[in-house]
Amino acid sequence: MLTIVGELINTSRKEVKEAVANKDEALIRRLAREQADAGATYIDVNCGNLIGHEVEVMEWLVRLVQDEVDTPLCIDSPSAEALEAGLALCENGCPMINSISDEEERYDSVLPLIKKYNTKIVVLCMDSTGMPVTAEDRMKVVKKLHAKLAAEGIADEDMFFDPLVKPISSVTSAGIEVLDTIRAIKRDYPDVHFMCGLSNISYGLPNRSILNRLFVVQTMTLGMDGYVLNPTNRRMMADIVTATALLGQDNYCGKYIKAHRKGLFDE
Amino acid sequence: MLTIVGELINTSRKEVKEAVANKDEALIRRLAREQADAGATYIDVNCGNLIGHEVEVMEWLVRLVQDEVDTPLCIDSPSAEALEAGLALCENGCPMINSISDEEERYDSVLPLIKKYNTKIVVLCMDSTGMPVTAEDRMKVVKKLHAKLAAEGIADEDMFFDPLVKPISSVTSAGIEVLDTIRAIKRDYPDVHFMCGLSNISYGLPNRSILNRLFVVQTMTLGMDGYVLNPTNRRMMADIVTATALLGQDNYCGKYIKAHRKGLFDE
Repeated sequence: MLTIVGELINTSRKEVKEAVANKDEALIRRLAREQADAGATYIDVNCGNLIGHEVEVMEWLVRLVQDEVDTPLCIDSPSAEALEAGLALCENGCPMINSISDEEERYDSVLPLIKKYNTKIVVLCMDSTGMPVTAEDRMKVVKKLHAKLAAEGIADEDMFFDPLVKPISSVTSAGIEVLDTIRAIKRDYPDVHFMCGLSNISYGLPNRSILNRLFVVQTMTLGMDGYVLNPTNRRMMADIVTATALLGQDNYCGKYIKAHRKGLFDE
Repeated sequence: MLTIVGELINTSRKEVKEAVANKDEALIRRLAREQADAGATYIDVNCGNLIGHEVEVMEWLVRLVQDEVDTPLCIDSPSAEALEAGLALCENGCPMINSISDEEERYDSVLPLIKKYNTKIVVLCMDSTGMPVTAEDRMKVVKKLHAKLAAEGIADEDMFFDPLVKPISSVTSAGIEVLDTIRAIKRDYPDVHFMCGLSNISYGLPNRSILNRLFVVQTMTLGMDGYVLNPTNRRMMADIVTATALLGQDNYCGKYIKAHRKGLFDE
């Protein structure tokens, strides 16, 4: 069963930024509803680029989204203050925080929130030495962060490791480093989950959509089970439903056939 | 580097059956040329359903295809007599035989041809007990056949194991049994190659094309490196080029960008 975090409510997107500026509730409600209907298991709320107004906007968005849908939220911000403002209002089941890392300030400010609000947590494979290159770099951080979080009483099932996807246009092996990381995490920590955004993989290349979609299929093949993506992208969702059936996770292809009948594969 | 066997010259296809009946050289030449131009590394020649005329048709097809293209041939037949008729005429480099298995009669009749004509060989994961179900079933046959063929002096690099793809519509785990077989063969016999047809995976389901294409992407992710398919299927080839780039087998995405410039991703 995949965890899909719907990414559309993010003030770095123009329509969302404008809706926030104009207090346009309808647009935000529509994005929440469409993503929930399309199969999002969490709705991401991100206003990290609105420095100075982030707390106020976070509260407005969280209230609005929860008034529209029952889907749990993923509270997504670089600011611990904004994270807490959002978490304090969460009522739709157990929320997720995006994200913690092994950067000292971030770790120290986010850890108390995970414990206080009993959340799921996206764990970036990154520390203060910067972005990792190889799978081995990533696994050093995974090992350290997993030990620290487990010592704080956080269950493996609540950790969602993000292997950090980088562009294959600049480093040819960027994709396989991620695939190798997934394989290693599955081997060493079979009960943790995964979460990642994909679009970095295709940065700088043409036909980005096909690269993003097939990278989902490849990572799913190795056991990746969570993505931040746009669930209203029908082609992406068709590929996910298809890959799930091929991986034997859809009894008698029932969900595949249902998706077909509902027109997901129509073009 | 993938091995792609172009599957279109097969008398079970209506246009080919008619071309053979009418001695229509132009159709056969066109199929050979189009598949070679689209990236086939072998051209399959299969007239296995023309019982009684198979030797004569095999000779006509092999001569014709080799007159049109320089691509090596994959001689494909259940009949050892027809295989030998084709192999005796092969001049385009080292041919491939499709196929041997551990069924006694087939094994005994095909083995001498591999040695006499020094061919590549597709090795079906099947013995006289019938079609395998689990990856474990398949690995028992792989182990036995690999030992027998190696004892005959056949190099690992010349063996192309076919894990035998079956429909997920009848057995939900049919796909993962194949994926697990690939993983096990890669682990135990790192120097052998793979070959398989895909279309069985989607038998009985709607939108077969997307199932077939994503199953290529999934099997490639685990190291599968050979397919019998239609290389003039642009979407299939676009997915293969994309998956290859994502797997770090395309330096600086050079082949991906070239395919884009040649219009492979246009729709």
